[in-house]
Amino acid sequence: MSQYSSKWIKVTEPFPHVLLVELARAPVNAFNVEFWKAYGDLFDALTEDGYDVRALVLSSAFPKIFTAGLDLNDAAALGSDGSDSSTQDSARTSLATRKTLLAFQRAIQAPERTPFPVIVAVHGHTIGLAIDMIGPCDIRYAASDAKFAIKEVDIGLAPDIGTLAHLPKITGNLSLVRELTYTCRSFSAAEALSIGLVSRVVNGGKEEVVKEALELAKVIASKSPIAVSSAKHLITHSRDHSVPENLAYTGAWNAHALMTKDIAETLRATAKKDKAKFAPLTLNTKLSKL
Amino acid sequence: MSQYSSKWIKVTEPFPHVLLVELARAPVNAFNVEFWKAYGDLFDALTEDGYDVRALVLSSAFPKIFTAGLDLNDAAALGSDGSDSSTQDSARTSLATRKTLLAFQRAIQAPERTPFPVIVAVHGHTIGLAIDMIGPCDIRYAASDAKFAIKEVDIGLAPDIGTLAHLPKITGNLSLVRELTYTCRSFSAAEALSIGLVSRVVNGGKEEVVKEALELAKVIASKSPIAVSSAKHLITHSRDHSVPENLAYTGAWNAHALMTKDIAETLRATAKKDKAKFAPLTLNTKLSKL
Amino acid sequence: MSQYSSKWIKVTEPFPHVLLVELARAPVNAFNVEFWKAYGDLFDALTEDGYDVRALVLSSAFPKIFTAGLDLNDAAALGSDGSDSSTQDSARTSLATRKTLLAFQRAIQAPERTPFPVIVAVHGHTIGLAIDMIGPCDIRYAASDAKFAIKEVDIGLAPDIGTLAHLPKITGNLSLVRELTYTCRSFSAAEALSIGLVSRVVNGGKEEVVKEALELAKVIASKSPIAVSSAKHLITHSRDHSVPENLAYTGAWNAHALMTKDIAETLRATAKKDKAKFAPLTLNTKLSKL
Amino acid sequence: MSQYSSKWIKVTEPFPHVLLVELARAPVNAFNVEFWKAYGDLFDALTEDGYDVRALVLSSAFPKIFTAGLDLNDAAALGSDGSDSSTQDSARTSLATRKTLLAFQRAIQAPERTPFPVIVAVHGHTIGLAIDMIGPCDIRYAASDAKFAIKEVDIGLAPDIGTLAHLPKITGNLSLVRELTYTCRSFSAAEALSIGLVSRVVNGGKEEVVKEALELAKVIASKSPIAVSSAKHLITHSRDHSVPENLAYTGAWNAHALMTKDIAETLRATAKKDKAKFAPLTLNTKLSKL
Amino acid sequence: MSQYSSKWIKVTEPFPHVLLVELARAPVNAFNVEFWKAYGDLFDALTEDGYDVRALVLSSAFPKIFTAGLDLNDAAALGSDGSDSSTQDSARTSLATRKTLLAFQRAIQAPERTPFPVIVAVHGHTIGLAIDMIGPCDIRYAASDAKFAIKEVDIGLAPDIGTLAHLPKITGNLSLVRELTYTCRSFSAAEALSIGLVSRVVNGGKEEVVKEALELAKVIASKSPIAVSSAKHLITHSRDHSVPENLAYTGAWNAHALMTKDIAETLRATAKKDKAKFAPLTLNTKLSKL
Amino acid sequence: MSQYSSKWIKVTEPFPHVLLVELARAPVNAFNVEFWKAYGDLFDALTEDGYDVRALVLSSAFPKIFTAGLDLNDAAALGSDGSDSSTQDSARTSLATRKTLLAFQRAIQAPERTPFPVIVAVHGHTIGLAIDMIGPCDIRYAASDAKFAIKEVDIGLAPDIGTLAHLPKITGNLSLVRELTYTCRSFSAAEALSIGLVSRVVNGGKEEVVKEALELAKVIASKSPIAVSSAKHLITHSRDHSVPENLAYTGAWNAHALMTKDIAETLRATAKKDKAKFAPLTLNTKLSKL
Repeated sequence: MSQYSSKWIKVTEPFPHVLLVELARAPVNAFNVEFWKAYGDLFDALTEDGYDVRALVLSSAFPKIFTAGLDLNDAAALGSDGSDSSTQDSARTSLATRKTLLAFQRAIQAPERTPFPVIVAVHGHTIGLAIDMIGPCDIRYAASDAKFAIKEVDIGLAPDIGTLAHLPKITGNLSLVRELTYTCRSFSAAEALSIGLVSRVVNGGKEEVVKEALELAKVIASKSPIAVSSAKHLITHSRDHSVPENLAYTGAWNAHALMTKDIAETLRATAKKDKAKFAPLTLNTKLSKL
Repeated sequence: MSQYSSKWIKVTEPFPHVLLVELARAPVNAFNVEFWKAYGDLFDALTEDGYDVRALVLSSAFPKIFTAGLDLNDAAALGSDGSDSSTQDSARTSLATRKTLLAFQRAIQAPERTPFPVIVAVHGHTIGLAIDMIGPCDIRYAASDAKFAIKEVDIGLAPDIGTLAHLPKITGNLSLVRELTYTCRSFSAAEALSIGLVSRVVNGGKEEVVKEALELAKVIASKSPIAVSSAKHLITHSRDHSVPENLAYTGAWNAHALMTKDIAETLRATAKKDKAKFAPLTLNTKLSKL
Repeated sequence: MSQYSSKWIKVTEPFPHVLLVELARAPVNAFNVEFWKAYGDLFDALTEDGYDVRALVLSSAFPKIFTAGLDLNDAAALGSDGSDSSTQDSARTSLATRKTLLAFQRAIQAPERTPFPVIVAVHGHTIGLAIDMIGPCDIRYAASDAKFAIKEVDIGLAPDIGTLAHLPKITGNLSLVRELTYTCRSFSAAEALSIGLVSRVVNGGKEEVVKEALELAKVIASKSPIAVSSAKHLITHSRDHSVPENLAYTGAWNAHALMTKDIAETLRATAKKDKAKFAPLTLNTKLSKL
Repeated sequence: MSQYSSKWIKVTEPFPHVLLVELARAPVNAFNVEFWKAYGDLFDALTEDGYDVRALVLSSAFPKIFTAGLDLNDAAALGSDGSDSSTQDSARTSLATRKTLLAFQRAIQAPERTPFPVIVAVHGHTIGLAIDMIGPCDIRYAASDAKFAIKEVDIGLAPDIGTLAHLPKITGNLSLVRELTYTCRSFSAAEALSIGLVSRVVNGGKEEVVKEALELAKVIASKSPIAVSSAKHLITHSRDHSVPENLAYTGAWNAHALMTKDIAETLRATAKKDKAKFAPLTLNTKLSKL
Repeated sequence: MSQYSSKWIKVTEPFPHVLLVELARAPVNAFNVEFWKAYGDLFDALTEDGYDVRALVLSSAFPKIFTAGLDLNDAAALGSDGSDSSTQDSARTSLATRKTLLAFQRAIQAPERTPFPVIVAVHGHTIGLAIDMIGPCDIRYAASDAKFAIKEVDIGLAPDIGTLAHLPKITGNLSLVRELTYTCRSFSAAEALSIGLVSRVVNGGKEEVVKEALELAKVIASKSPIAVSSAKHLITHSRDHSVPENLAYTGAWNAHALMTKDIAETLRATAKKDKAKFAPLTLNTKLSKL
Repeated sequence: MSQYSSKWIKVTEPFPHVLLVELARAPVNAFNVEFWKAYGDLFDALTEDGYDVRALVLSSAFPKIFTAGLDLNDAAALGSDGSDSSTQDSARTSLATRKTLLAFQRAIQAPERTPFPVIVAVHGHTIGLAIDMIGPCDIRYAASDAKFAIKEVDIGLAPDIGTLAHLPKITGNLSLVRELTYTCRSFSAAEALSIGLVSRVVNGGKEEVVKEALELAKVIASKSPIAVSSAKHLITHSRDHSVPENLAYTGAWNAHALMTKDIAETLRATAKKDKAKFAPLTLNTKLSKL
């Protein structure tokens, strides 16, 4: 796995098929363009390479901080081009800005594109871009010491990398989403739990929450990869489509997913009180490396 | 009402216009193809026949178990055809599987198609297909002894009969939906309540929860059938469409629903402190039997 | 601001850029056609005129009652034309009813069209149309003495002015939405909080909840109007579109919103520990008065 | 095949796997409720039974007339219930009407649900309901003696059984669609061809057009049923979804359809200059009879 | 009818229930803000007032020119505010521009909102905004002397008032739409006919085409207003929704439209070989004036 | 430009800002995986690099053939993995196939993602994949010697790389689309023109059609790149969204596009009867290279 580590991102494999990804740009995991590109590229490489990952835990290497959000020293991180807009054509500047935003969005949304579940374990400062980052993760855990804030309005802009796209779908409380967005006030792990932004609060800090997330990852990694990755794909589809559209799509999807040998294997293992063994999700062939 | 009972489904009418439907395939209400076809046919028959039902409570005849889910002795229940796939054409097998899935989905979604509300009262084991079954019900109550699990991944498949289509719309906590789906772990009635999977937990077991569900059904049965069935239809539409689309559809719908004499009747009854009396929803004519 | 007050609606500006709108049709804020037209016109006028509003609090002038809902003495309020349907052509009557409904919907949805956030502070009786009214508001606070009910079914009709369009999107509990709609039973502020219908309950009554709402409004009014109004616009878009559709739209939107000088101003103010000063949202030009 | 014939519908099999369905209710194929129910039931039975049909030609048994449309002697055919609306509750009457309309729509749309292509060959009078009927057919041929008209407005109603749903998608000329709908004027086969309502005009009458349609059906019946039925399914999906949605759906669909042995068979037949032989689409198993 | 005429728009009623609207801003019907506001207001007033219009012909008062498009002397007509962008905040300028665009779009789309059909008869120069204007009209006729061009790209902008929203739906030839848009080249009435941009070319000029359009309008005006306005509404819905969505909506709509007495009247008139007489669409009541 | 040429694709720049791309894999431009990857990569590189292209003509280097479609010697080109499906897990094989299909679709759809228009000039054999390839091109010209066929059904599969996604949107004749797809019969350039699959037929062969396409490209390249690329983006959006959705999106988009200096430049050039000069679309900055 070490081949996946890079300057600011540490990748280990604490259990078979379970990866731990730690953000490690000292001192506060501030994101500049290079950092978010590396972040998106990591998830896409794991998807493309067919390395047999079955669950991934995302966390920070620094106990007190998940991320402070954008690196304000990097003008580009704000979507700006740094060019002098009084001389540049303003429509062309907007188009360039849009291109950056779409690339930034694509990088941060990468966990949604992996075929395996991504569990994010947040702790300490979880600010600004942090909220955009956790939306595309499958499962969100927080340490009780986590401090959240949707900070973008405080620097004069609406969140545009995913926070507003995901929040109305992952919590049942649009009123609170709006209050938190408009005021940028801090909120605790308990409040995040109450609106479903996280689904579990672990007493303690980084150590405790990562331990629980890894335990969860181990359980998931013991299940059929066909079943888990199909479920992930279909839940995401369900979020973005009506009930009848999702039922129809699921019919087309499971028409082939149900052909898997994993079903027989689970029945065999249950009958023999054995541990089920599953093949990797990705066939090891030339084409799977496209 | 007894004409609607069948081999494994018991139908009674404890109060006027209120039906109680109890699943009764000993020992654990395991669903094979014959059972789910009978289940879907019952709801569709009630819709077509125009029998004057105003609310329906769905439960199990066995105190310890709502349903254990699929009958694994019936290969077809898994969507498989039982044919030897090494000799069959694999695309044709997939098409046959898809046809079965769509019929299975249609049967289990039947409560959404009735013009009257369906209240499901679960208790004891509420496993696998049980979760697909409660999604299309209007109102979900649980006894405190209920034990839930989304079990499909444990037999190597993603849920495909409605669980993943409905859950992202009926709870505000996608993170927990994913955890429960990927891990298949049990969860209690209290946890089901906390994410809105059920809206009330009744202390006790089958007896207590069915009693409360019937009380609720009686209240609903006393209301205008035009108002209640319109509200049901429009809430389902709202779930699957944007706010502006739903407002436009509601405009077309209530253009005729507001012509009802039930409005005058409620005003009359209120003024006279009388109990309002409403005609059945369905006109008793040849065409209504189509 | 007094120019915006009208017969039954009182408009004041307790803090700069913060408006307080109080419903004041004695004795119970019952809505007839004239009242809901004035209500919609007020919000649209504030949007069109470019008066520099940055947050608005909506409440009632009467401590015991937010609104009792429709004025049943005004047949038109029910969407009925008052004409004799036995002589009128029934299709034409339906079309006329539909036209009224669409105008009524448009008036009540007006807070969603303002470029500034609307905070509704409810207290006492919050009945029937009240629920339609709070859906399009950005943020919903309740006094602990608030009593809610979705009353339409009790007068023989399905809610059609927004309740059913909004509720499935603003709470994560469709089961409870259906129960409350079908039964018309009362529910407390605490229950409203538990399903996200309101996001905060303030101990006390009108005085206390309005005070807290105004404090919130003041905070919002101190932020960049470009950032806040963009966030409002994008959250509403997100509610009605899929995640990918919203991300694409946000890319087009922030391509220009990020050109604002407010970003530099927030950075300057933060560096100088100064209070940021922002220009009004609306340019003071002829065209902005269209 | 004769088992599929019924009182007013004649079914023959002029070539293997090719059916000819002729409407035969003397004198003018006027549709009452019994007729349209039999029509829908025929297509659904062919779909369910798994009889090995690969293409179907729909025509009329009467040389001078395809159909004159609704049977105006059957009030129900107009969607009316025949009940006295002055005594009935008007909202209930509307609901009953809607139920009839949906059943009528479902019957007439049945050709869209078959897994094999349906070629309609019209000739002579092709009036009113005829236009609703040809929309859901895959391929439309006309004899040069065909006379079309969208007649509904002339009896005081908007077409509601499919004409207005299909026409804006099957022709590129909304302006003409509107003119023909509002005026009910006749139009010739040549004009129908010019807007794509039919894709071929055959010189002559019933005999000539049916001959050409059968020739086309024979060609289609010689192709892989997996390929043809997949193409039919995906074109219909494409009509109703955006390009990106259709591409994604096609990816899920062909993931299994490409597993077919028909591909190898076509390659073998081409290499050997042989006629390819394909298995029926439907597996001959118990489940395929659901 | 004269009360609807205004400075630059002439309104007459050449036949009962048939209006002729002529654009008359000398010398070339160039559109500034005042002109397009008056244009939109006229159609909305006709819709709101309930004047008994059954068909409307739109044309120009000047034989040689339908319209030359935007008035380039009015900066505002380009969506620009005329303010000095080097001093203004660029995001606020964009927001103001957007507000103008939406108002401009709303005015030009007004013919789509009327309950009666609008027939546009173009002749001579039909340039730029002219194409945006004819999209929302029901039926498009051209004189053979008409000269079309989509001119916006030639002044440095993409068409934004409706041309690009409508053209891909009203013609079946996206390739030509793109060529005409990118090159701004002129095209003849015959070419417009070939892609369905117009559905009929009348030999001659203004006089001839308006005569034919009025003849068409007279035919439409003799039909049931319930049937025609329902058909208009449902075709527009069909253009913007899938086939199944439109069928469902039509079910809800015709549930009340079929209650009309116009059906009986058409049957009576046919039986008696009489001319059918219909009531106005709009009930003459207080509420219809909302 | 020569840096963009690769083994099988020749790229030249016959006029400033106008590229000519010629497919050149002897003898018949058969597509294997390497070829379609190079094809997609070329368009994406042109988009990313910001080379100042304003129009592009796509053609073939071989006069007699545009492309014969898939290279049947490359099993992978069929989406198959070449693995032995009797030993592989069938669900995993389907997933691998789907991954290949999505990558193949993404490559062939690349012309839709460029900011400049792509004009395809076909001639000679234009078979199978050729039809998938021309759908995402902006403008389609054909030489009169072109021979088209949708060949996929003849090798046992439904077209899945774009043909069925695009055809129902680019022609107004679904009936013919279905006939051509089901039968695989050849059709001429004239027939392609009649359904809008191409918008112009140039008498002659490759030489003649490429000459005309280049002339068109030169005209487009002389226009404002902001206007042309905005128009391209908005037409594609319009094809995939309803009229109201597209109008709203256009409002957000042109809010910034209208800020361009190109508008003033076109007005200046017109006034001075000068040739307008425009800056490249892409700013030459670090970020534009993301």
